[in-house]
Amino acid sequence: MAKDKKMVESITARDVDFAQWYTDVVKKAELTGYTSVKGCMVFKPAGYALWENIRNELDRRFKETGVQNVYLPMLIPESLLDKEKEHVEGFAPEVAWVTQGGLEKLPERMCVRPTSETLFCDLYSKDIQSYRDLPKVYNQWCSVLRWEKTTRPFLRSREFLWQEGHTAHATAEEAEARTVQMLNLYADFAEDFLAIPVLRGQKTDKEKFAGAVSTYTIEALMHDGKALQSGTSHNFGDGFAKAFGIQYTDKDNKLKYVYQTSWGMTTRMIGAIIMVHGDDDGLVLPPKVAPTQVVVIPIRQNAEGILDKAGEIADTLKKAGLRVKLDDSDRSPGWKFADQEMRGFPLRIEIGPKDMEKGQCVLVRRDTREKTVVKIEDAASASAQMLDTIQHDMFERAKKFRDEHIYEADTYEEFVDTANNKPGFIFAPWCGDVECENKIKEDLAVTSRCIPFGDSRIPKDGARCVCCGKPAKKMVYWGKAY
Amino acid sequence: MAKDKKMVESITARDVDFAQWYTDVVKKAELTGYTSVKGCMVFKPAGYALWENIRNELDRRFKETGVQNVYLPMLIPESLLDKEKEHVEGFAPEVAWVTQGGLEKLPERMCVRPTSETLFCDLYSKDIQSYRDLPKVYNQWCSVLRWEKTTRPFLRSREFLWQEGHTAHATAEEAEARTVQMLNLYADFAEDFLAIPVLRGQKTDKEKFAGAVSTYTIEALMHDGKALQSGTSHNFGDGFAKAFGIQYTDKDNKLKYVYQTSWGMTTRMIGAIIMVHGDDDGLVLPPKVAPTQVVVIPIRQNAEGILDKAGEIADTLKKAGLRVKLDDSDRSPGWKFADQEMRGFPLRIEIGPKDMEKGQCVLVRRDTREKTVVKIEDAASASAQMLDTIQHDMFERAKKFRDEHIYEADTYEEFVDTANNKPGFIFAPWCGDVECENKIKEDLAVTSRCIPFGDSRIPKDGARCVCCGKPAKKMVYWGKAY
Repeated sequence: MAKDKKMVESITARDVDFAQWYTDVVKKAELTGYTSVKGCMVFKPAGYALWENIRNELDRRFKETGVQNVYLPMLIPESLLDKEKEHVEGFAPEVAWVTQGGLEKLPERMCVRPTSETLFCDLYSKDIQSYRDLPKVYNQWCSVLRWEKTTRPFLRSREFLWQEGHTAHATAEEAEARTVQMLNLYADFAEDFLAIPVLRGQKTDKEKFAGAVSTYTIEALMHDGKALQSGTSHNFGDGFAKAFGIQYTDKDNKLKYVYQTSWGMTTRMIGAIIMVHGDDDGLVLPPKVAPTQVVVIPIRQNAEGILDKAGEIADTLKKAGLRVKLDDSDRSPGWKFADQEMRGFPLRIEIGPKDMEKGQCVLVRRDTREKTVVKIEDAASASAQMLDTIQHDMFERAKKFRDEHIYEADTYEEFVDTANNKPGFIFAPWCGDVECENKIKEDLAVTSRCIPFGDSRIPKDGARCVCCGKPAKKMVYWGKAY
Repeated sequence: MAKDKKMVESITARDVDFAQWYTDVVKKAELTGYTSVKGCMVFKPAGYALWENIRNELDRRFKETGVQNVYLPMLIPESLLDKEKEHVEGFAPEVAWVTQGGLEKLPERMCVRPTSETLFCDLYSKDIQSYRDLPKVYNQWCSVLRWEKTTRPFLRSREFLWQEGHTAHATAEEAEARTVQMLNLYADFAEDFLAIPVLRGQKTDKEKFAGAVSTYTIEALMHDGKALQSGTSHNFGDGFAKAFGIQYTDKDNKLKYVYQTSWGMTTRMIGAIIMVHGDDDGLVLPPKVAPTQVVVIPIRQNAEGILDKAGEIADTLKKAGLRVKLDDSDRSPGWKFADQEMRGFPLRIEIGPKDMEKGQCVLVRRDTREKTVVKIEDAASASAQMLDTIQHDMFERAKKFRDEHIYEADTYEEFVDTANNKPGFIFAPWCGDVECENKIKEDLAVTSRCIPFGDSRIPKDGARCVCCGKPAKKMVYWGKAY
């Protein structure tokens, strides 16, 4: 068994070096690969299959709310990017420029899209004339390019995959409602499907999207106590509409500007899955998103009837709608166990000669290693039930961990002590001034993650800004972030 | 009714100006839109939904044959593109170059991928060491960029969407088998799912892919008699493997080069659907690919109970698994009929007060306009059956048209006469010399489309090249092409 585990023994322990652990898991589980393209990554089959499952489920949820998919060009002419001032200032420093097409120098350079607000605005300015044309609730699945200097697989790379929703509405209220609706959709998706608990709230002005009136966010806590911004939804008001001249004739025959939103979720979420659920033996995938949910592993597979029986069990599970693999390779059982654990498949079924004699097989959970013996004829129903339990338990475990890592601070001394010694979120009052955000970032590399929704955003009577001591206006979740 | 039809009356008739008819249909059915990005197109919801259905079905068929999806970077460093001589010569003149990233000029320029052979080779050279690592059967869904001078929606645009499969095998035989397997998969998909009959065959050396040993193709006939290359599958032999150093240690412990293939299908297929099936009233969509298969249209929808009953029918059809819309807008029935016809939804169901009295509704086929009265309780089963019939009939009709437009020619006089006067394929013997292909292209703008598989590729005894009169080596389908 010691030799069998060699392949996973080379994963660095989480508590020794979290960053190295992450790199090891990504590589050993074959999620990504390297090419000769600096700063870009390859999604290998195991990594891309996670994205396909995320995409399919998100897309289904989008469509239930009336979203329609479209596809716009990957190139943006410079003059188009320049139309909205804050937006271009936010993105121009990090775009890649195409200057030559075929054998000719382009009359105007174009950037590879870092995001597509400007293209959607261009389209909407042509397609929206009347109130009958509203709302437009479009989304696109694509890749975008941002010229990052330091990169890490899934978390930060020059090219990443995402969806970007872009909507246009007749009223400010409708735009605000859509912004919140999509933020909540992201939150529910993260919690239900990825088993990742999130804080929902609003970004401060300093942290909001370039060109937005307000930005809402979901923030997740990774195992190392750092926050990961996991999905954002922006309300643009009529700023872009004015810059791009997107007007419609209303029922009262008056010409009005539309109100817009945008919202996105990216392949970062794969990084979140790894860092929330993984352990020292590798990936631990929530059953709903796992491309392979169950691996059937025969013990002494050369013994008579074992391989056939293992195959039968796998087929029965497939027929029951589970995503199943039979590992009939010529490796040893121990190697296969370690391999399944490293790849994070949520459940394995072991069946050997002694089990077969007794008409039973053994279910082993990836998350807890708990073993359960079940009758062979109950394998499918027991597996389905256990996958539900695993999904549920993984969320509860992550939520307990997250809740245990939220600290309160009333004074800067407390704040500094927590930031330096207790990884996690710090929930603390804030005066509303960007100067305090800047000081906290400079002193501690801590940023405001979000102002929560609802009553918890309101400071207690007499509460003072944790940084400057002036009266507090808002409660803020602070943290170090990816 | 005349006024109701106004919107479709502005579609140019096919026989008056086929190119204008195409442009009109694409625009009126809202498949595409324009942006300020020259040579690129916008896929609007109706256009993108067709691509989603194509993608999902192709992807399902791919995975049944063991294909795994991956995603590689969109940028290719120039030195990587340069590694395979024929390949770079084929693509360098039509790529777009990124020369600046962020605020800095790049040390080496990179092109936006026109196709990804070089990136896959780069990956395979790192990931393939042993016979245990073979075969690799990878595919990616993405967009590519080729700097075309003249563009047409779906048929030729600077950016288009596609899938590109790239495989690596231990032997030449296995690579050849995969090349043929994927070509047949494309052919079956085109015929079964898109109701488009295709010729299957091999490209001549002149027409094959840059860097390939052999290229197989499916060729479809459009309504104007021009051919559309609809999917290609390439056998690369070990040429790329040698250029990129992709070697593996075989069971006999010897170092060997892999054999590779690639194969692709694109958003062109949407153009094929339009040009094979469309008519003077607009699109006609085969039921299997149609995003909306049935539209329920209430007649006198303000009459009591009509709208409810129409809604009930729509719900019943949805529950039966059909893709259904209820058109309850405030337009007139005539307008709605014309709208449904223009958008090509395969079937409509009409229900008015008189029908309701009789407990019936009227099914109207888009392809033939045939009306069938059915009991309301049979609406779902009758619709499902009729959609099957439409799918079947559309294929048969297209096949009959295609077969009636294949002409044979034994002499150059016959060949010239057919090329000038009879739109369609010309099946004629060829000596195998590129000079004859060049002459035919110069004289008539006709190109070799494919050499068919099987016995029909062998010329009759004594047959002579239709161009030069030398003994014929192969039978070739010739045609004018998009």
